Amino acid sequence: MSVLVVGTVAFDSIETPYGSAERILGGSASYFAMAAIFFSPVRIVGVVGEDFPKEYLDILSKSGVDLEGLNREKGKTFHWRGRYHEDFNVRDTVELHLNVLSGYVPRLPESYRDSEYVFLGNIDPVMQMEVIRQLRSSRLIACDTMDHWIQGSSEELKKVFGKIEILAINDSEARLLSGERNVIRAARSILKMGPKVLLVKRGEYGVLQFSDSSLFVTPAFPLEEVFDPTGAGDSFAGAFMGYLARTRDHSQMGLRRAIVYGNVVASFTVEDFGLKRIASLTMDEIERRFQRFIELTDFHT
Amino acid sequence: MSVLVVGTVAFDSIETPYGSAERILGGSASYFAMAAIFFSPVRIVGVVGEDFPKEYLDILSKSGVDLEGLNREKGKTFHWRGRYHEDFNVRDTVELHLNVLSGYVPRLPESYRDSEYVFLGNIDPVMQMEVIRQLRSSRLIACDTMDHWIQGSSEELKKVFGKIEILAINDSEARLLSGERNVIRAARSILKMGPKVLLVKRGEYGVLQFSDSSLFVTPAFPLEEVFDPTGAGDSFAGAFMGYLARTRDHSQMGLRRAIVYGNVVASFTVEDFGLKRIASLTMDEIERRFQRFIELTDFHT
Repeated sequence: MSVLVVGTVAFDSIETPYGSAERILGGSASYFAMAAIFFSPVRIVGVVGEDFPKEYLDILSKSGVDLEGLNREKGKTFHWRGRYHEDFNVRDTVELHLNVLSGYVPRLPESYRDSEYVFLGNIDPVMQMEVIRQLRSSRLIACDTMDHWIQGSSEELKKVFGKIEILAINDSEARLLSGERNVIRAARSILKMGPKVLLVKRGEYGVLQFSDSSLFVTPAFPLEEVFDPTGAGDSFAGAFMGYLARTRDHSQMGLRRAIVYGNVVASFTVEDFGLKRIASLTMDEIERRFQRFIELTDFHT
Repeated sequence: MSVLVVGTVAFDSIETPYGSAERILGGSASYFAMAAIFFSPVRIVGVVGEDFPKEYLDILSKSGVDLEGLNREKGKTFHWRGRYHEDFNVRDTVELHLNVLSGYVPRLPESYRDSEYVFLGNIDPVMQMEVIRQLRSSRLIACDTMDHWIQGSSEELKKVFGKIEILAINDSEARLLSGERNVIRAARSILKMGPKVLLVKRGEYGVLQFSDSSLFVTPAFPLEEVFDPTGAGDSFAGAFMGYLARTRDHSQMGLRRAIVYGNVVASFTVEDFGLKRIASLTMDEIERRFQRFIELTDFHT
């Protein structure tokens, strides 16, 4: 079962305490797709500029990602420059050039319109809504967002929330969205806004999953070296959605396993700059780390 | 099997965003004992002043805690006044009066000297070493400490580390002790200092357990209401040691279950001021929350 992702395909320039990388392949849709492709076919809807190199597109297409919905338009590609501090929990956006993304309206190729698994990456909720409008039928829509849209586009965001099954955000976004400091109270408030399932990403502390009838809490895979946290959340979401699309198991246990696969793939992502580690990753490594995670967390079997 | 704890029995004055409490029963040994007593007999070694009320001692003794080693000396009882901020991760010590604790030398009653499970609460490492010296045989010694001793008494602390099996500290203490920011690197460095097992307490994010051959990571029990985090770490340690003493199961799985019982009891502790919640707690509630924790974290059975 294919997964459709709408999001950014971008140039990322990254500085961390361990080094820096200039104009590498980045963007939410790139990370999502490179993670989801381990489990399911993936289709990207997005836009790049005339300056976007063919070798970056090749990284995606050689991994098997369907790029029919990735338009190339006049102008420059979206470019983000970020800087991480010593503890990796603080990230500064140093530069942000929307370029071709400004005014972009997603257009789904005809063959994409029956996608049953859809992920709306962190873009303007007006664009997210436009994608939903063009879908003919969809089995499961998940969505990400950020403080910028929560603060500036709350009405549009609420409309999106009425159409989705799963919202995946981080803990500070959950607090901002709900006005509640405690994560359980925040979740209860957010579930009333529309999503049936809420995933709260807590970085190195793992993930919480909430629904009306269930709660799941799981730590992150413990890592000795984190080189670059960029894309951790998007590759988490990619593996999560890819696993769901492969198994079509939306049971509580199915969702939980999807979350742990998401954690596992994200733990590889942060081990090197950009998409470097995930581009060389194998399914066998993912399965071994999934088993290792069972060993690291089990206390009752 | 009895558990011996040396630590403070104190007056605590606490302010949180939800209210305040004046001169209530507190101290590391009190929290430890009230948690451990659910699983094993407990003996306290410590000191209080002439001003310490009989009703506070009654709370401990009515729960079954052996107070033969708790001396009453001339002067005033140790008094700590602390203030928590909105997010509970920031705590200010507003007042600290050592009183009778200053110059105190622990003296183990003869009947305590064969204790097989011993917990050295967060006190001067010179006192911790004195307790170790007075023990005839011991099966398992665990120890807590804090930034004050790590920075000011590192030589004495290293001697203690050479005599203990388990060190239980929080993540910022682990970083300070090792000089390493990453918790896995910090653990590797600390295990070289003597302890066979290191527990790193991460508050609302759970616990990591390290040894040369194993790693265990577990989240905290998620709570909607936290009223007062005081004593969470000590009641965690109490339930952990009490469970080990009851089962005498020092296997990796035994240690992991002990950690989860520690998390469960600590999650009750923080639900009300001071020892209020834990004083009314039942073993049945503990067992139900342990089962609930399995449900909240399971993804593979």
